[in-house]
Amino acid sequence: MTTLIIGAHGQIGQLLVQELADHHQKPRAMVRNEPQAEAVRSLGAEPVIADLEGDFSHAFEGCDKVVFTAGSGAKTGADKTILVDMWGAMKAVDIARARGIQQFVMVSSRGAEDPEAGPAKIKHYTVCKKVADDHLLASGVPYTILRPGRLTDDPASGRVINHWPEKAEDQWISRADVALAIEHCLGSPGTIGKIYPLFHGDQPIAACLG
Amino acid sequence: MTTLIIGAHGQIGQLLVQELADHHQKPRAMVRNEPQAEAVRSLGAEPVIADLEGDFSHAFEGCDKVVFTAGSGAKTGADKTILVDMWGAMKAVDIARARGIQQFVMVSSRGAEDPEAGPAKIKHYTVCKKVADDHLLASGVPYTILRPGRLTDDPASGRVINHWPEKAEDQWISRADVALAIEHCLGSPGTIGKIYPLFHGDQPIAACLG
Repeated sequence: MTTLIIGAHGQIGQLLVQELADHHQKPRAMVRNEPQAEAVRSLGAEPVIADLEGDFSHAFEGCDKVVFTAGSGAKTGADKTILVDMWGAMKAVDIARARGIQQFVMVSSRGAEDPEAGPAKIKHYTVCKKVADDHLLASGVPYTILRPGRLTDDPASGRVINHWPEKAEDQWISRADVALAIEHCLGSPGTIGKIYPLFHGDQPIAACLG
Repeated sequence: MTTLIIGAHGQIGQLLVQELADHHQKPRAMVRNEPQAEAVRSLGAEPVIADLEGDFSHAFEGCDKVVFTAGSGAKTGADKTILVDMWGAMKAVDIARARGIQQFVMVSSRGAEDPEAGPAKIKHYTVCKKVADDHLLASGVPYTILRPGRLTDDPASGRVINHWPEKAEDQWISRADVALAIEHCLGSPGTIGKIYPLFHGDQPIAACLG
């Protein structure tokens, strides 16, 4: 089994690469350039250089599973949210379908379930994530969708909950725990066809994401 | 037959309202506020005030057909392209499906057929238009999609072509001719289920959009 990680040089991506490498798996890490390739290679991945805003279908060669954890981030404009977070993800789903990928793990976001109900300030972002998620749901590709809360740099706890905490200040999860959750999903066929809200909590990941 | 025009206070919208009113049809004109309502009322429409970024389903009450010609324009950011041009259109399609609308005329854009092939500068826009068009195509709502070229303020000629001119400088059409094309589509069941590129040209609209 080979897993392609799209967004492997991102914060969650690098944690995931390291985690998989620690468990003797060598993921395919899609990155933008040679310095990023060197970085993920040193973490234990096999890099492939490809442009998410262009044709990146060659990155899927020989892969069985896909993790999409790319994001344009807060420093660029909404045009990049369209081209990377939404359109990049939709194109990845289309390639996954064409290639018969066995599991597509989408790192989505809290709020993507109903952009109308969330804060106006991030609505353009949650709309883009919802549209990408819906494209995956309609594609026929076996999916697992994770919708983590506000991301922090806290260390991994291995414990989460899969429902929304009541208080806004509790609606967070560490990137390290998101990486662990992705790793769990990749090894657990029971997570296929599921959509999980994901927040820090008190349940072991394997018990929570069944 | 009552037609709801979403984006009725826009440039194409106002031309369309006037054209329909001139032919003794009184469209429902969806606008944002009272001054806009007064403007479209004076052109011959029945205004309905609604927010395309909120819940606007009440605007569809008693309508049989819908024209979507709203756009956030060049003065706002890509966040508004997401919320108005794409998400507003997708929500309009969902409401149209729920209400059994008989024809949905989408004013799309050249380039929406293949954002990858078009200029990078407007790709975020053509992606949003394509995603909205694809949502309409998948919805089951009877559709007509118009994909006009660069819009100008030239007077109506009543003549168009439905294929791409070879030279870039010829890839334009007047807003007035787009309005005439929409009016034609609303009265011509043969245009349902069709996607038309639309540029200025030498063919009468009725002959060209069959």
